[in-house]
Amino acid sequence: MAFAPHQSDAAAVATIRTLAADVVGKANSGHPGAPMGMAPVAHVLYSRFINANPKNSKWLNRDRFVLSNGCALQYILLHLAGYKLSLDDLKAFRQVDSLTPGHPEAGHTDGIEVTTGPLGQGFGNGVGLAIAQAHLGALYNKPGFDLIDNYTYVFCGDGCLMEGVASEAASLAGHLQLGNLIVIYDDNHISIDGDTAVAFTENVEQRFLSYNWQVLHVDDGDSDLGAIHNAIAEARQEKNKPTIIRLKTTIGFGSKQQGTHGVHGSPLKADDIQALKTKFGFPADEKFHVPKETYDAYAEIGKRGAALEAKWNDLLAAYKDKYPKEHAELTRRISGQLPEGWEKTLPVYKPADAAQASRKLSEIVLTAVTPALPELVGGSADLTGSNLTKVKGTTDFQPPSTKLGSYAGTYIRYGVREHGMGAIANGLSAYGGIIPFVATFLNFVSYAAGAVRLSALSKHQVIWVATHDSIGLGEDGPTHQPIETAIHLRAIPNLDFWRPADGNETSAAYYVALTSKETPSVLSLSRQNLPNLEGSTIERAARGGYVVHEEESEDLTIVSSGSEVSIAVEAAGKLKAEGIKTRVVSLPCWSVFDKQDEQYRLSVLRSGAPILSLEALSTAGWQKYSHEQFGLPAWGASGPYQKIYEKFGITGSNIAVVGKKVVDFYKKKGGEITSPLVKAI
Amino acid sequence: MAFAPHQSDAAAVATIRTLAADVVGKANSGHPGAPMGMAPVAHVLYSRFINANPKNSKWLNRDRFVLSNGCALQYILLHLAGYKLSLDDLKAFRQVDSLTPGHPEAGHTDGIEVTTGPLGQGFGNGVGLAIAQAHLGALYNKPGFDLIDNYTYVFCGDGCLMEGVASEAASLAGHLQLGNLIVIYDDNHISIDGDTAVAFTENVEQRFLSYNWQVLHVDDGDSDLGAIHNAIAEARQEKNKPTIIRLKTTIGFGSKQQGTHGVHGSPLKADDIQALKTKFGFPADEKFHVPKETYDAYAEIGKRGAALEAKWNDLLAAYKDKYPKEHAELTRRISGQLPEGWEKTLPVYKPADAAQASRKLSEIVLTAVTPALPELVGGSADLTGSNLTKVKGTTDFQPPSTKLGSYAGTYIRYGVREHGMGAIANGLSAYGGIIPFVATFLNFVSYAAGAVRLSALSKHQVIWVATHDSIGLGEDGPTHQPIETAIHLRAIPNLDFWRPADGNETSAAYYVALTSKETPSVLSLSRQNLPNLEGSTIERAARGGYVVHEEESEDLTIVSSGSEVSIAVEAAGKLKAEGIKTRVVSLPCWSVFDKQDEQYRLSVLRSGAPILSLEALSTAGWQKYSHEQFGLPAWGASGPYQKIYEKFGITGSNIAVVGKKVVDFYKKKGGEITSPLVKAI
Ligand SMILES: [Ca+2]
Ligand SMILES: [Ca+2]
Repeated sequence: MAFAPHQSDAAAVATIRTLAADVVGKANSGHPGAPMGMAPVAHVLYSRFINANPKNSKWLNRDRFVLSNGCALQYILLHLAGYKLSLDDLKAFRQVDSLTPGHPEAGHTDGIEVTTGPLGQGFGNGVGLAIAQAHLGALYNKPGFDLIDNYTYVFCGDGCLMEGVASEAASLAGHLQLGNLIVIYDDNHISIDGDTAVAFTENVEQRFLSYNWQVLHVDDGDSDLGAIHNAIAEARQEKNKPTIIRLKTTIGFGSKQQGTHGVHGSPLKADDIQALKTKFGFPADEKFHVPKETYDAYAEIGKRGAALEAKWNDLLAAYKDKYPKEHAELTRRISGQLPEGWEKTLPVYKPADAAQASRKLSEIVLTAVTPALPELVGGSADLTGSNLTKVKGTTDFQPPSTKLGSYAGTYIRYGVREHGMGAIANGLSAYGGIIPFVATFLNFVSYAAGAVRLSALSKHQVIWVATHDSIGLGEDGPTHQPIETAIHLRAIPNLDFWRPADGNETSAAYYVALTSKETPSVLSLSRQNLPNLEGSTIERAARGGYVVHEEESEDLTIVSSGSEVSIAVEAAGKLKAEGIKTRVVSLPCWSVFDKQDEQYRLSVLRSGAPILSLEALSTAGWQKYSHEQFGLPAWGASGPYQKIYEKFGITGSNIAVVGKKVVDFYKKKGGEITSPLVKAI
Repeated sequence: MAFAPHQSDAAAVATIRTLAADVVGKANSGHPGAPMGMAPVAHVLYSRFINANPKNSKWLNRDRFVLSNGCALQYILLHLAGYKLSLDDLKAFRQVDSLTPGHPEAGHTDGIEVTTGPLGQGFGNGVGLAIAQAHLGALYNKPGFDLIDNYTYVFCGDGCLMEGVASEAASLAGHLQLGNLIVIYDDNHISIDGDTAVAFTENVEQRFLSYNWQVLHVDDGDSDLGAIHNAIAEARQEKNKPTIIRLKTTIGFGSKQQGTHGVHGSPLKADDIQALKTKFGFPADEKFHVPKETYDAYAEIGKRGAALEAKWNDLLAAYKDKYPKEHAELTRRISGQLPEGWEKTLPVYKPADAAQASRKLSEIVLTAVTPALPELVGGSADLTGSNLTKVKGTTDFQPPSTKLGSYAGTYIRYGVREHGMGAIANGLSAYGGIIPFVATFLNFVSYAAGAVRLSALSKHQVIWVATHDSIGLGEDGPTHQPIETAIHLRAIPNLDFWRPADGNETSAAYYVALTSKETPSVLSLSRQNLPNLEGSTIERAARGGYVVHEEESEDLTIVSSGSEVSIAVEAAGKLKAEGIKTRVVSLPCWSVFDKQDEQYRLSVLRSGAPILSLEALSTAGWQKYSHEQFGLPAWGASGPYQKIYEKFGITGSNIAVVGKKVVDFYKKKGGEITSPLVKAI
């Protein structure tokens, strides 16, 4: 496809540039330089290539656009293209409760695919979006029915490419031969600290060649629309490699300060904006000027997109006739509805069932539900045998040429790339039709913290299978034993952190995680065996907290989670022998428990007796649910896990001693004992 | 230097291999494959190259050895070389309270430079160690006095090279032209998930060439000691680039399962170990066999090291005569003593002094103390102008050929590489003589969580200047506004998280951070201006918590931190006008406050009236210090910061309303109000 210049191109590029200056200028905050520099490529991409219908931003086979160096550029494009974003919305850039917050947020603004701004994340998301296309295409496309064949376009800057999360994702994308992924690297030689010569002098082209990418470049990204066009066209031709196009641009093109970091993160001066507009033939004093020819040109783009979707809908209808089963499954998956009755496959346990590690219980759940849930696409950061995440009979997601699997495979070998994995999973979820799960040791979820918080902010249903979740992992020692990780994840809004205590609780955790369409979950799972509790059921555990062992007129309640609940039960037994009546509460998920009605919560953690928390982690945060806290004073230790539990006094007998001390203290203190849940605010 | 084979070489290599099998076998836990595969290179490196004195593991100019793929190998080498690690210690591998925990821990075992195991970290630490050498060498070496010229050797495997943290550090190391850094990559084609073909097929050599490294390779790392020797010798010759040597080895060499992931993470079977020993000519049934000739050979290595140190001590003595000032400064720095009177340079503020952002107050501190503290070597992850970390007049740490600075420079341009920066800072601290500070937005400290927790575990004095620490950053919005970050960091043992409220508190935070030789600190700093408080002094704030506004017979205490303390004070004023006597407590650092004596703590957060916490972050954890908590219910928002504070009710007037509600509630409830610090356990 040769480049066909259009007389409206120059005005459109100038419009994007001047709008960027005005949007940032009005907000008096933001980054004008990158959007001004990337205006030509943004225009070429939107006007010549992007298949999307601005009137239906959820059309399945749309091309995905990710602005990894998140800034105002995307808002400008969405406005021009006719998404639900008005000029007034642009004027409200970076204002409270506007549709145009500081960085694009998925689910907040029409047409935004993924949340970007934190550098490197969008790059990883793009790899996930491309994997999702390759996977769903391999599953559902049929001869004559290329239902799912969209491209993923990612814009990124120097900052994104310096981030390790992007390096990890890029290496995997090359391995996976994702021909549908096209990254445009804005090589403007400027980052916040100034010239990239101060810190970023690697040979980016050579690096991406080493990852098995196609590498193209455009020397004049400021004005050579034809070269930009041809590079993108060439990128689309390469079907077995992702492509990166190194596009040399001038940051803040048109400004008096163009090419310097002065235009990176601060608004342009008023006279500079005036001069800029004059230079482009725009009225110098009119703000937010959009020429009619630009709106007209973008209206044509919208029409093209609407026509493409209409044609695709016809194709889908024909597909339905010919492949009714596949059609039904695909549309169900895209709708986010789980198949009826899937939950009946969840394993249920009786107390007499053998003790098992919750990582093993997790494997049993995955094995049970996988046949019913083809949307489960999982993988591990090179810990498959430890995380127990590979269900027997599943196939690797691999490029066919490797002969190690196929794109229809559902198991992703992420390599030792936790952060990249997290960002990729966000992209998989953002695509639709896929519920991604990812796995590593709980301690190394921290490597991916940047991606995990964006899952939660962006409402991506991503499930982390986080095994080896305490000192119970034993010999690997303090370098691998989480201490602070649970409270870190518990403090993230819209993230369910589950620490199940036995088989039924593990099933409950998966039940809630799989049915929470807008909430990511971290399942914190043990390496060591856990007995099945007398009082646990899926239904009770699914409330996030419940009474696992009841006593009337108790002297003490012990509240615990995960591998320590059975230790609490053991302590309660010992205390009972001493005449101290002890209830035990299991609290596998704080955030889900917090959502229960007050009456229920106060019945679980009731007033009248002291509540002692027990967890083999930092005690931080447990004060919300208990009067007294027992946990690890500092780091764990290396050794067989039973010995470590003994070392730190987390045994039935020692907790009984601690419990007695607590009871004595509150008896001596006197006065009413109120539940910690009873609050003024 | 040509390779001179020695008759003891074969036995030494076999000893390392069989010890690895026995150590892991006795522990019944660990990774035998990598040490067995890397035995030849380990032996060549230790016997031919490493300059170190096992009898003084702290000798300044020793070569640094980092086992990034942390495992038993390092313990075996330390034992053979004569460090304080006996054969019994090896037999206690992975046992509670042994000197040989699951992965090497700095400060725990003689001769371990940095804590490794979490993959990729050691690679980053190695870059930090190499920077430290280059910097101190540039500062203190004189003609004829190459006092500081050691090499840093890093062993790493496939896992380390997949991690983004290593990619970030590698790119920066190439930019910095660190000729003293030599990485040996154990290319054994196996990781935990099996053949690296499943996930790691990039061209590693090409990648490191793109980073501006020298790339060498050895095709037979299993037996060609001469080739290994020559590669290391060649690496040492290259003075302007770091070197990576790709060493092809067979994992678990000698085992029946060699070359498979069966030998990666599980002990060898007993008969396999027997066969292995027979193959190497060792007694099949003797465990932990070390031939006399091997001990003898390593004793020679020890003698060589002792002689090198003795010679170096003579050089140092001569240096003292010729350069007494430099000598005094160097020895002071290495000892970790700060210069006398440095603390007098800390800025002190009066309430009438202008309100300033605490990031600006931080800059003022750095500007004030830098002339007194040449050991401060700082930098930012490409946010210098926002973090305000570059002190005027300081020079960039840059290779001289860039003409952007010199190795004597103290300001490191880290690029957008937070995790790499954190790992590098740990290496800088581990070297000695340097107090590293690093900077980014508080939200992006999370990108470096893996390195931060290892700072704390390894007792590295690293200072994080973490600006933009709440919704107070305003326009960038929820993608950049920390919510969970403070409690995450507060829950890490041995890490001081400071959130200073004004000028004196900022000085106090630096005072404690700079004098805590074995504790990393994160300084959480505001973007917005903060008034100087009536009640603050450096001394009071240095206790971690104190009464900033006192009232007798109070109705309420508000405890707060950072930018919200002045809002609490404003609320207290409004409440007073309504007859509600309100104390205000500032709690800038929980961990330091927790170390104060009980009487003091109970005088600050005393019984008798309800305590309300206030912080513009998640309330998680504040229940430890307060009865009621006010904070952010979920994510922040994008907009001018005052509007966001209003949106979330964090204003003097709304907090007064909340405070009144709290007072009413507890009056109505009746009963004694006990300080939350009064505890049974
Ligand atoms: Ca740039
Ligand atoms: Ca390997």
